[in-house]
Amino acid sequence: MRLIGIALAATAVALASPASAQVAARWITLGTQGGPIPLKSRSQPANVLLTGDGAFVVDAGDGVVEQLAKAEVSLQEVKAVLLSHLHFDHTAGLFGILSLRWQTNIASPLAVYGPPGTRTLVDGILAAMAPAVRAGYAYPGEFKAPFEPGVTVVEIRDGASFDLGSTHVTAAKNTHYTFTPGSADDRAFESLAFRFDGPGRSIAYTGDTGPSQAVERLARGADLLVTEMIDFDRTVAEIHRVSPNMPVAAMTGITIHLRDHHLTPKQVGELARVAGVKSVVVTHLSAPAITEARASEYLREIGAAYPGPAVIANDLETF
Amino acid sequence: MRLIGIALAATAVALASPASAQVAARWITLGTQGGPIPLKSRSQPANVLLTGDGAFVVDAGDGVVEQLAKAEVSLQEVKAVLLSHLHFDHTAGLFGILSLRWQTNIASPLAVYGPPGTRTLVDGILAAMAPAVRAGYAYPGEFKAPFEPGVTVVEIRDGASFDLGSTHVTAAKNTHYTFTPGSADDRAFESLAFRFDGPGRSIAYTGDTGPSQAVERLARGADLLVTEMIDFDRTVAEIHRVSPNMPVAAMTGITIHLRDHHLTPKQVGELARVAGVKSVVVTHLSAPAITEARASEYLREIGAAYPGPAVIANDLETF
Repeated sequence: MRLIGIALAATAVALASPASAQVAARWITLGTQGGPIPLKSRSQPANVLLTGDGAFVVDAGDGVVEQLAKAEVSLQEVKAVLLSHLHFDHTAGLFGILSLRWQTNIASPLAVYGPPGTRTLVDGILAAMAPAVRAGYAYPGEFKAPFEPGVTVVEIRDGASFDLGSTHVTAAKNTHYTFTPGSADDRAFESLAFRFDGPGRSIAYTGDTGPSQAVERLARGADLLVTEMIDFDRTVAEIHRVSPNMPVAAMTGITIHLRDHHLTPKQVGELARVAGVKSVVVTHLSAPAITEARASEYLREIGAAYPGPAVIANDLETF
Repeated sequence: MRLIGIALAATAVALASPASAQVAARWITLGTQGGPIPLKSRSQPANVLLTGDGAFVVDAGDGVVEQLAKAEVSLQEVKAVLLSHLHFDHTAGLFGILSLRWQTNIASPLAVYGPPGTRTLVDGILAAMAPAVRAGYAYPGEFKAPFEPGVTVVEIRDGASFDLGSTHVTAAKNTHYTFTPGSADDRAFESLAFRFDGPGRSIAYTGDTGPSQAVERLARGADLLVTEMIDFDRTVAEIHRVSPNMPVAAMTGITIHLRDHHLTPKQVGELARVAGVKSVVVTHLSAPAITEARASEYLREIGAAYPGPAVIANDLETF
């Protein structure tokens, strides 16, 4: 289902049909909003990487299970979930993945990769599931197997690398979190970008980030850069409009966060140019009301720094 | 957004515009699927009751936050969530409600009403949220208030009654759970139906249930009965098709569950007739591929027992 009809189909098809399409991984943008305020036009941040080895969910915003169904990817196919960071617009759908797996009798293993904090997140979800697991389908004589959700948590940090079948994954710490250097929180938490090197194709995913040399290095030469983007001025104006009475301290904090922890179109172009990627897909759009004209404006700003092909993604597009 | 175009609009509009529309509560079917296997055509079970006092979510399947946004109901307006029972197709979206409330700075109180097990469910979700709450927006000097999610849990059982503003709510134990009578699980768990008596309008909601005299009594004379429904034969056939290798014991158990814990169209009609309700909306559709012809068939079967107006709901319809 196309939620906003930005007319960039020709470019999107070109990206979606590389010469190696028969073997190369496909990337589906399940939700292209930059959260966390729910929108009717775009779903919360989520993606799925499809390879010959299965489906790998990359960030899992609210409704990811429904978006997977719309993309015709079954929960049975999902072998792993990768979380870039802990903000709930990227994790709120994990409860649905874990709980509906159990309720639909999916016993195959699921790996959840994510930054520090992911184990507590998953443990809390499993604890929340306990009463319903015990109640089961609730008919006399029901056989209740021990609760084995089949979930393995792997907490990862900057520099982590691991394989998802024939796809090699590398993680790098980006700049979405900028705690006071050396503070307890700075030591405890990380926000990550990922790179997927599979047969025939390399895809770099920024996660949420501000400008970051680590992300530039991670994305170097990738066939596809999947990047976040913010329309800073319009997003700040929208927050003022929606929350006119927000305390000044809170508004200041959000403004700092939006300014330092996200990429403007110009910064997206600079990242793509410096990294030398072959194509760009823009998702996690922190911007109100993205019309066709507005999307063209963003692409012009990106194009001023980066000469390669770039598209503004919609929900449920394949690249 | 209309996901399936069943052409019953005239009837739906008639239900949606009673003489007392200016003051009467409105019921929006956010997700009309009978879960738990995700579909592309219908969202997981969820509803919202809108009154002059706010928005009250009734069951909260995966993606409920997104569906609320599509219905133009903000999280800020949601004053309570009512859970009919613990199956995850009815609860998987609760993580999204609680976590995105926090991340979007909604500090107003939220009450979560549900059967025994609801407190453990909510406690697990709050525990899962802890690392992200601690990390916050992650900029130097961020002020982090103590974690006060503003959530009150009220566990309710058969016969519970309480007020949501000017709307009086009554709960009754239905037959969706049929544990061995007197067993520990039977004492521990309940599945509930709800009745909402507000100014100018009474709405009964079956939750998931098989035939139940308690639900018949609860719904007596209601202006609107919102009821679940199963197409038993086609649902069983679909499970055989999708899971041909399911162990016999599991298949037998699911068949018992589907047979005893849900209402066929005929049983929906009988419930509506015995209860003497003034109109019927059918949701939580456990049935594959609901075409217009199929919907008409269900309505004929309901109509054989119940002479009043009835509609098969789609996602995001208002009644």
